[in-house]
Amino acid sequence: MKTVAVKNIHRAPEEVVKALGQAGTATVHEAQGRTGLLFSYMRPIYSGAAIGGSAVTVLVHPGDNWMMHVAVELCRPGDILVAACSSPTDNGYFGDLLAESCRARGIIGLVIDGGVRDTGTLARMKFPVWSKAVSAQGTVKETVGAVNIPIMCAGRMVIPGDVVVADDDGVVIVERKSAERVVAAARERENREAEKRVRLASGELGLDIYNMRPRLAEKGLVYLENLEEYESYEK
Amino acid sequence: MKTVAVKNIHRAPEEVVKALGQAGTATVHEAQGRTGLLFSYMRPIYSGAAIGGSAVTVLVHPGDNWMMHVAVELCRPGDILVAACSSPTDNGYFGDLLAESCRARGIIGLVIDGGVRDTGTLARMKFPVWSKAVSAQGTVKETVGAVNIPIMCAGRMVIPGDVVVADDDGVVIVERKSAERVVAAARERENREAEKRVRLASGELGLDIYNMRPRLAEKGLVYLENLEEYESYEK
Amino acid sequence: MKTVAVKNIHRAPEEVVKALGQAGTATVHEAQGRTGLLFSYMRPIYSGAAIGGSAVTVLVHPGDNWMMHVAVELCRPGDILVAACSSPTDNGYFGDLLAESCRARGIIGLVIDGGVRDTGTLARMKFPVWSKAVSAQGTVKETVGAVNIPIMCAGRMVIPGDVVVADDDGVVIVERKSAERVVAAARERENREAEKRVRLASGELGLDIYNMRPRLAEKGLVYLENLEEYESYEK
Amino acid sequence: MKTVAVKNIHRAPEEVVKALGQAGTATVHEAQGRTGLLFSYMRPIYSGAAIGGSAVTVLVHPGDNWMMHVAVELCRPGDILVAACSSPTDNGYFGDLLAESCRARGIIGLVIDGGVRDTGTLARMKFPVWSKAVSAQGTVKETVGAVNIPIMCAGRMVIPGDVVVADDDGVVIVERKSAERVVAAARERENREAEKRVRLASGELGLDIYNMRPRLAEKGLVYLENLEEYESYEK
Amino acid sequence: MKTVAVKNIHRAPEEVVKALGQAGTATVHEAQGRTGLLFSYMRPIYSGAAIGGSAVTVLVHPGDNWMMHVAVELCRPGDILVAACSSPTDNGYFGDLLAESCRARGIIGLVIDGGVRDTGTLARMKFPVWSKAVSAQGTVKETVGAVNIPIMCAGRMVIPGDVVVADDDGVVIVERKSAERVVAAARERENREAEKRVRLASGELGLDIYNMRPRLAEKGLVYLENLEEYESYEK
Amino acid sequence: MKTVAVKNIHRAPEEVVKALGQAGTATVHEAQGRTGLLFSYMRPIYSGAAIGGSAVTVLVHPGDNWMMHVAVELCRPGDILVAACSSPTDNGYFGDLLAESCRARGIIGLVIDGGVRDTGTLARMKFPVWSKAVSAQGTVKETVGAVNIPIMCAGRMVIPGDVVVADDDGVVIVERKSAERVVAAARERENREAEKRVRLASGELGLDIYNMRPRLAEKGLVYLENLEEYESYEK
Repeated sequence: MKTVAVKNIHRAPEEVVKALGQAGTATVHEAQGRTGLLFSYMRPIYSGAAIGGSAVTVLVHPGDNWMMHVAVELCRPGDILVAACSSPTDNGYFGDLLAESCRARGIIGLVIDGGVRDTGTLARMKFPVWSKAVSAQGTVKETVGAVNIPIMCAGRMVIPGDVVVADDDGVVIVERKSAERVVAAARERENREAEKRVRLASGELGLDIYNMRPRLAEKGLVYLENLEEYESYEK
Repeated sequence: MKTVAVKNIHRAPEEVVKALGQAGTATVHEAQGRTGLLFSYMRPIYSGAAIGGSAVTVLVHPGDNWMMHVAVELCRPGDILVAACSSPTDNGYFGDLLAESCRARGIIGLVIDGGVRDTGTLARMKFPVWSKAVSAQGTVKETVGAVNIPIMCAGRMVIPGDVVVADDDGVVIVERKSAERVVAAARERENREAEKRVRLASGELGLDIYNMRPRLAEKGLVYLENLEEYESYEK
Repeated sequence: MKTVAVKNIHRAPEEVVKALGQAGTATVHEAQGRTGLLFSYMRPIYSGAAIGGSAVTVLVHPGDNWMMHVAVELCRPGDILVAACSSPTDNGYFGDLLAESCRARGIIGLVIDGGVRDTGTLARMKFPVWSKAVSAQGTVKETVGAVNIPIMCAGRMVIPGDVVVADDDGVVIVERKSAERVVAAARERENREAEKRVRLASGELGLDIYNMRPRLAEKGLVYLENLEEYESYEK
Repeated sequence: MKTVAVKNIHRAPEEVVKALGQAGTATVHEAQGRTGLLFSYMRPIYSGAAIGGSAVTVLVHPGDNWMMHVAVELCRPGDILVAACSSPTDNGYFGDLLAESCRARGIIGLVIDGGVRDTGTLARMKFPVWSKAVSAQGTVKETVGAVNIPIMCAGRMVIPGDVVVADDDGVVIVERKSAERVVAAARERENREAEKRVRLASGELGLDIYNMRPRLAEKGLVYLENLEEYESYEK
Repeated sequence: MKTVAVKNIHRAPEEVVKALGQAGTATVHEAQGRTGLLFSYMRPIYSGAAIGGSAVTVLVHPGDNWMMHVAVELCRPGDILVAACSSPTDNGYFGDLLAESCRARGIIGLVIDGGVRDTGTLARMKFPVWSKAVSAQGTVKETVGAVNIPIMCAGRMVIPGDVVVADDDGVVIVERKSAERVVAAARERENREAEKRVRLASGELGLDIYNMRPRLAEKGLVYLENLEEYESYEK
Repeated sequence: MKTVAVKNIHRAPEEVVKALGQAGTATVHEAQGRTGLLFSYMRPIYSGAAIGGSAVTVLVHPGDNWMMHVAVELCRPGDILVAACSSPTDNGYFGDLLAESCRARGIIGLVIDGGVRDTGTLARMKFPVWSKAVSAQGTVKETVGAVNIPIMCAGRMVIPGDVVVADDDGVVIVERKSAERVVAAARERENREAEKRVRLASGELGLDIYNMRPRLAEKGLVYLENLEEYESYEK
């Protein structure tokens, strides 16, 4: 494994990153063709946080958080740390002291395929973290990993500078080069949805708004009057 | 598999459904002889919600939420959607647009042996969901399933019209025909518990209230003075 | 298995127990050499609770909570119930009635390698519980277990009288005999951290505060300018 | 819960049960419209066993195998014990002594949503078991459950007399009333498959045998020459 | 954490250890009052192995197998390595080279609450291992742990010199001081079982051999003629 | 998502692929710097198989195995199918008919981050599969995915033409471009190990062969005579 720290990365334009963060994971995931979602075990430590930022990647070794400190220096305001471990563990690789340091540097959140601790304090600080586990189990600083190289995190590859969108529904990664295109698709989707939301809230049915009835019939859906009819119905 | 949507189902009387919702899962589960509980992996997306309603069942196929739209039309105010998938997945089969539609129709919640998304919005809308997973991963509309047939959901069979009770402790299903009997048993239990609660809160011990001491002795419980005595004690 | 209830246990001094509770799990875990942490599946039923107390241990049998009642009588104000089961289950061994009884006796919380129920009520009562599961599934009172014997709980041994520290990060056990030493180490650690927190919050880097740069270089960390350089870099 | 043992059950005709066992789980599952499969955590204790038989159901309580003994008496040669527990546990509810008793009575296997032990001996005896867990953890005989009532086992309902088919792929339940129809469908499927197997083994492609090419094209599948073309391809 | 290697440990008498190994986990677990069983996730890498030996304990750090080498030197013929990690990982801490070394020293097996690799070769060598995982993921040799101190392994405490019994049903730990008593209880149990086995194999029922009928009736078991009677039966 | 099938891919030289297959996962994983290993939940359906081949990648949709048929046509003798699903499921995407087709085409195995069925027949055919699950649950042919595009499989990215090495220890992916270098490193490693194996088998200790003693002492390992000394030892 290469033990390197890459100092400079390309980031998507600030307004693109911001727009993706506002669109949220569900919309962004749809807008980029249903790709890029991290495994659903990645959960926020408190609910209600929603962020978008550029990924600074960190590869740590099991039970060792040394690289987190190296990564902090290489971040810019608006970045999000995305950390993975060379083999799976639940250790708490990140706590309130590192969060103070992140905050001072303008880092807006952490996504880690591992554990986090001091979650009570982090919640009070409103420093959002998405992680696989919460654990008070600490770490050592003995083995060198890497910063800003492509990493595998919770089932997806993350390239430094990719856009990270995270909220209560999970975490989605947008490739830097596709970011602008995805923003456009997300906006289009949001516009479409806004109109539908009004119609649905007024009691109109999705069956009619999306004109589903003919296709359901064609695919074989049969309406029956009651369960008694169902019992005697043979497909 | 039969691809049908059953239009009319029998429901328990409104006041019975309401009473079961107020009793809560733990009491109802006891009152019906400790049956009907869904697997404990069914968790609410936000805490504090507590509902009771009639089940409208939905059987979807993996990664396909088409039947959710069909089901909404067949619900009445006070119903709860109970959805299961023909094979296990974590996709987000339900989001804020469907919730708008449900709300407009008077549907009061969703129980799904699968995933849900837009959970931040759902929590702000106070539309309660109990699910196996939270995931931004969306779905297609390609394969026809069924609405209002008996389904297996999180380890239990649910018949359309069964009463669903859901709160922070999980989800319990009451068979429609037993609903009235269970309400009576739940009330009796609540009355017994109310009295005990006062006595316990005043410091009286369960050991005495339930007269456990003689039976504990008979079953072989021995009181020892301290751990030293325990070390030398041979059963 | 010995079916006994040990009446008297040694506890750590009150001010030591209190100080450990205030230090929190992450600090205490570090201060005692990174030992004593329960498995990370032990989660609080609501966030924000943080307690420290002396362990009164309970060994129950699967689906049977009889010993919980025996244990309540043997507790003193400030104690924490620590319960395990002779084989793993998710049943709800503890609910609001037992919590009333605990509160009346001054018991400040429960740690259980099993399930709990009535969690909505427990949260409103502010009676904190750390558990493996939440489940409305109740229990019987048929089989005698033990109180105040050494038990295995969520991967660790707990001796009656050990100090239990629990908060949003999980649960850590401190051996009674080491408690005073651990308090001292925790305080020392907190003082060191307080100073660092100020420096980190002002933007100073951990890399410099901990003087990590020379050791990182010695261990082989190489800084590269950008990802292009990384692609062509061969370790 | 009703504590009963039902003495007589209806079984499917012997030749139907036998034919289903020979068809195997994958074919039977297809033949009955992809329903009835137990959760995939149900695994055989040794590979190569394949059985079909009538279900005699057993409901035990956690850590208690008393009802297994009651069930043995109510079985006929060719029956399969199907056991579930009122709440999930891994205890070893069945071992070599019970297997001796089963063998003497003509019982041909066990399906248990729980644990089993003495698996080394059971494998040598060639007494097949499909279970959720293997565990030496024994059980008591204190609480009465039920025999031959409908039970929930590994995610499906099993009615006494249903046909159980189990092999290396898992366990599938066939409703007694559908058994004859499923046999016919299974045979038809096997015949179709036998012919295809010969063609596939000779190198003919599924694409051509099933005439998939036009429909794939219509659904949007595009063939590209190489990955370079893919990189520049925009959907 | 103390970084020590304890050179000499007390072992149970050779014939006692041997007898426990021959009795097997299920019998031994019963014979010592149903305690000492490791979690059921501890599985053998191949079936059919059954051993008994004295525990030499190893505490490793995540992703680091250095202490395995230290432990090998401190073993005597007939010993079993019992390894745990300071935080949970799946790394392969042990492979064929270490197995060669173990074999040369007379070590008869490994029990590890972590991963193992080269399992194909280990199976061909007939060197038995019980582990939580199989993984080709290797380890480093950077951090010092401990040998022959009490460790927590798969949910139980293991003291160096305790007797380890492992077979297809899992792993059970017998405290050294209780070993002789447990052998006696195991033999008694085996004798009782041998006699019963003959009777059960001849078709006699457990219901009669254990005289269960009166107690079942007293506890409320009711025999019904058929499922129809069950439907109308109200407890 | 792009719905394409890429017809031609670059493969590593045949002798390189073969050499990697012979080296096995543990050696290859080490030789390429401990990267490329799939999650340890990927298990073989029978033990003893060990293969190396070029990856033909398949992306299926949940519950739909249509693309498997498309992929078979695009394989060459010696290839290995590597399949992933756009969202996680356990369905059996592959069975004995597809295996016949694969065999006829010279495909030597399947790696699938999903389920497989007909495992009894596959084992008798000696067609090796590494999968996350075994399940008789079948699939439909409704939704078009992709063949020979980069996919995420069990936590790693797989590029078509990458070398796949799979045996009892799991599955490791070698990037095509690194394959030759990894073969060289693997051979070097094997040579070093062969020599050590002889010395270890003769009873020489790893402690001495690797000259570990001075570094262990330097890192703080202390040898104690016995457990009594350990009890009184304070670090």
